[in-house]
Amino acid sequence: MSATDITTRDERLSQLLRNSKPGYTLPQAFYTDPEAYAFDVSAVLTRSWFMLGFEAELQEPGDYLSVTLGPHPVLIVRGRDGVIRGFHNTCRHRGAQICAEGSGRLPRIVCPYHQWSYDLTGKLLAASRMPEGLDREAHGLVPVRVELLEGCIYAALTDGAPDFEPFRVAATPYLKPYRLAGARLAHESVLIEKANWKLVMENARECYHCATGHPELKVSFPVVFGAGFRVTDGSRNAAYVEAMRARGMQVGPETGLWWHVGRYPLNPGIESVSLDGKPVVGPRLLDTGGEAIGGLRWATEPNSFCHAFTDYAFMFTAVPSGPQETRVISKWLVPREAREGVDYRLEDLTAVWTRTNLQDRDLSENNQRGVNGLGYRPGPYAPGAEELVIRFNNWYRATAAECLGIR
Amino acid sequence: MSATDITTRDERLSQLLRNSKPGYTLPQAFYTDPEAYAFDVSAVLTRSWFMLGFEAELQEPGDYLSVTLGPHPVLIVRGRDGVIRGFHNTCRHRGAQICAEGSGRLPRIVCPYHQWSYDLTGKLLAASRMPEGLDREAHGLVPVRVELLEGCIYAALTDGAPDFEPFRVAATPYLKPYRLAGARLAHESVLIEKANWKLVMENARECYHCATGHPELKVSFPVVFGAGFRVTDGSRNAAYVEAMRARGMQVGPETGLWWHVGRYPLNPGIESVSLDGKPVVGPRLLDTGGEAIGGLRWATEPNSFCHAFTDYAFMFTAVPSGPQETRVISKWLVPREAREGVDYRLEDLTAVWTRTNLQDRDLSENNQRGVNGLGYRPGPYAPGAEELVIRFNNWYRATAAECLGIR
Amino acid sequence: MSATDITTRDERLSQLLRNSKPGYTLPQAFYTDPEAYAFDVSAVLTRSWFMLGFEAELQEPGDYLSVTLGPHPVLIVRGRDGVIRGFHNTCRHRGAQICAEGSGRLPRIVCPYHQWSYDLTGKLLAASRMPEGLDREAHGLVPVRVELLEGCIYAALTDGAPDFEPFRVAATPYLKPYRLAGARLAHESVLIEKANWKLVMENARECYHCATGHPELKVSFPVVFGAGFRVTDGSRNAAYVEAMRARGMQVGPETGLWWHVGRYPLNPGIESVSLDGKPVVGPRLLDTGGEAIGGLRWATEPNSFCHAFTDYAFMFTAVPSGPQETRVISKWLVPREAREGVDYRLEDLTAVWTRTNLQDRDLSENNQRGVNGLGYRPGPYAPGAEELVIRFNNWYRATAAECLGIR
Repeated sequence: MSATDITTRDERLSQLLRNSKPGYTLPQAFYTDPEAYAFDVSAVLTRSWFMLGFEAELQEPGDYLSVTLGPHPVLIVRGRDGVIRGFHNTCRHRGAQICAEGSGRLPRIVCPYHQWSYDLTGKLLAASRMPEGLDREAHGLVPVRVELLEGCIYAALTDGAPDFEPFRVAATPYLKPYRLAGARLAHESVLIEKANWKLVMENARECYHCATGHPELKVSFPVVFGAGFRVTDGSRNAAYVEAMRARGMQVGPETGLWWHVGRYPLNPGIESVSLDGKPVVGPRLLDTGGEAIGGLRWATEPNSFCHAFTDYAFMFTAVPSGPQETRVISKWLVPREAREGVDYRLEDLTAVWTRTNLQDRDLSENNQRGVNGLGYRPGPYAPGAEELVIRFNNWYRATAAECLGIR
Repeated sequence: MSATDITTRDERLSQLLRNSKPGYTLPQAFYTDPEAYAFDVSAVLTRSWFMLGFEAELQEPGDYLSVTLGPHPVLIVRGRDGVIRGFHNTCRHRGAQICAEGSGRLPRIVCPYHQWSYDLTGKLLAASRMPEGLDREAHGLVPVRVELLEGCIYAALTDGAPDFEPFRVAATPYLKPYRLAGARLAHESVLIEKANWKLVMENARECYHCATGHPELKVSFPVVFGAGFRVTDGSRNAAYVEAMRARGMQVGPETGLWWHVGRYPLNPGIESVSLDGKPVVGPRLLDTGGEAIGGLRWATEPNSFCHAFTDYAFMFTAVPSGPQETRVISKWLVPREAREGVDYRLEDLTAVWTRTNLQDRDLSENNQRGVNGLGYRPGPYAPGAEELVIRFNNWYRATAAECLGIR
Repeated sequence: MSATDITTRDERLSQLLRNSKPGYTLPQAFYTDPEAYAFDVSAVLTRSWFMLGFEAELQEPGDYLSVTLGPHPVLIVRGRDGVIRGFHNTCRHRGAQICAEGSGRLPRIVCPYHQWSYDLTGKLLAASRMPEGLDREAHGLVPVRVELLEGCIYAALTDGAPDFEPFRVAATPYLKPYRLAGARLAHESVLIEKANWKLVMENARECYHCATGHPELKVSFPVVFGAGFRVTDGSRNAAYVEAMRARGMQVGPETGLWWHVGRYPLNPGIESVSLDGKPVVGPRLLDTGGEAIGGLRWATEPNSFCHAFTDYAFMFTAVPSGPQETRVISKWLVPREAREGVDYRLEDLTAVWTRTNLQDRDLSENNQRGVNGLGYRPGPYAPGAEELVIRFNNWYRATAAECLGIR
């Protein structure tokens, strides 16, 4: 779009945002309108950190992840020097996507169309049949920012994303006891949801709906939380907080505008999030000598939350794929030494979160249908039960305002 | 959209409408353009009465119908006081759709997302985990207007719909002899048609195409009519008109800008619209002691027509679902005491209109394909054979002009 | 759209085009944006010649082809006088599509909706139930321009298409030795590709990708060409050029802004494009007494290329069907006397081009995915290997500039 068109669109969105109330759901257009989606994928989301997966998926030089964020294909690859880098997954010749979505290993980055070849740092090595004078320096892959956090991979499409350091500093001590960098990807799933990504994320940011919506999850997960995982608020959790302190472990939560990390107790007598609350993997992910210490949750706006338990970790990410369509990508990490069929059964490992995801899909799609109607009015969030939704909403309002230049 | 955007769109549509000729099909954009569709569902259709179904479907308190008009989910429910009310089917909390599309019975209206509960009058009863100070009066379900006419349910999304009374006054004596309020829904069907709703309705407003297009219908139905069902025009019908007068029954038709009602004779020797022209239901719907008196047709813009015969009634409604997609919802009513398999066979009851609907779907989709092309020119309606299409076209022109402020 | 809206859109496209570099792929919006697609189908493509098929498909009076170009349904029909004419395939009454997509034979052109009848010259013959005063002259089918070239049928939607004569004059001597007008359609295929039509055509205009992308094609086809089929450039082809000259046959290529025709040698020892390089049809298409003379290629912007060999001819056309969707229609012509199962096996005839088409579909769809991303930058074409892509790109730039009034 031209500057003029973007101005028109942005004026409209600015006006809607200015006239809307914090603490309430967004004006209808933000959940329904193709132009608001275009704004999100070209502005809000290009200034954000996306969680993409784990270092454990890229063990060797040349190992890559290829994902598409909105319309933007992205490639994450480990170099010969061991460094993990990110690139726009688009050839500088005719614009073909270089690596198909998914993962794999490659010695060089070769476009399947006309075999333009790049090294693992994105430098153009060869472009057959191009004139001698082709400026190779000017035709390398366009870089994408990558940050690593104790084995987790985050990427940002542009330099407009916020400073990563505060999150890294705060989250590192929480994550360190889990051996994520040395773990192994046991399972990955992709779910298409017919709902705007912000409705998917609002759903993912509260457990107000869990008691009725997630019968399997609530067996082990403290669904009455959700209020920011501030376990210090409840007297019931005093013993947990005390036990963690005795270990020298922080409970948190600690937060920034776009991130959140904290520990929490599971339900009484529960060791892990599984159908029966018992660990589902033999070897332990957590280096505490087998002792369960509840759960660890870390989450980033716009699109991720993770939970780590004594035996496995779970990642949830929502990737926008249309005004009213979102792809939910989930990953399960286990200790590297755990053997499928021997140390764990995949069905047991994935049972709770798979069902939870499917239930959430139905809730989000139903939410979309209601939001589409003439009867939709922005509604109030519950200050406690929906605290993290309010945080998401505030983050979106702030980032959109910044993109729109109205802050 | 902002006031500015709507102004731009509406200026364009106003210009097209002003430059177009009454008595001719509409300018291309009205049948093809996503913006014209947005105009229709947000303006023209929110000022219109939609026929939704029958009181007979809501026998008991808590019985409901959930339908979606364009993008707008709507809920119709019978209260404990027996009154039938309408609501936007969108929760005032996070905007979820409350009742899934279809029908059923419920003691209260409970949102499946976070269990906000409303009574059958739409009043908010409970919103767990919300602060004490929540203003319940301000968070009831948003009402939708409902009018009943001798057992038929009509709804309007806003107060912009026209006065219902003239239609009620005119139509009541025609409908009264049929016992619709006490009948029973025997069958319902939904058909997706890849055509703009106005093409579907133009097709539904004439029988110029019936002689070749509907071989089953033409056995019983006087397909040479269609010219406004003005049976008094043809000498052939003099006996029919005389017989009705002798009974003290009006023949009509009587009309308003957006409604039409009248009686007509079926083909010679025919008692009902069925494959062989004989009644398909044992018990009679009509309280004339078993004597056939032809058909009764009542129709409303934008989207319905109904026919009642001696033994059953048929409802056709077209619900826009996209710029070039429409859902046709049909219902068949029989006397409440009629037992399926004993007093009627469902296959016989539905044979003619089901085939007619499928034939009309093909005609409408083919119409859409032709209208999409560069060779499309607004064409002339036949003043007689397409009289009711001209009425639809005039109603649309008038309502659109009113919405656009160009009257 | 109104003049105002078109102005806005066109200003944006003009600005993008002016700021872009010839010799490079187009700005992103031209490959991705719904508005650019609307511009293409309403402006660029309505001023272009489309290859639709062959006279051989319309042997008798009343034989027709019905195709849809973008949203525009078109009808090509042979009259009683033997003349082949084109019409917009849209009835002048209510705008229905008259002939379903495909081919067939009809005595008159009768709309299936209300039986308005036109003769084979498009004149309105009958419109039942219309008033006496209907001006039949004013309600004939809207004509489409048709040109024939040695058995090939080309059509243009408006008078804005360029002069056909230079192409006819140049191409006739090349095409004449092939007996296309008297041949027979042996096979036709349609392939849906999820890519903008310009990406499909860029793919179809080079063989830079053939060595790795088309293992079956490269057996027989000189994939190292592609550089404008200028066979005179390579010393390897001197013998071929000499042999053609000895026969009095031009080699070419000859070119206009939007057309290209030339002969070329197949790989050494190869007689036709087939899996093993041997002819796949017994009788010969080419009137050279059975002697192979390589291939003949003729191609037109925006959407076609054809190859003729000693035994068969192949047509490739790309028809836009959405911003990121294209229908590829291919046809195989054989000598009329060739009998399937006796003189040729359909599987052998179609093997190479069917596989090549499927491979090209994957390449084009992958190209689209990469072009959609934030990392897309217009990239440089190889001046030699992509000469015909540069020609396509230049043609598009010139035609778009003309439509936009910026030349």
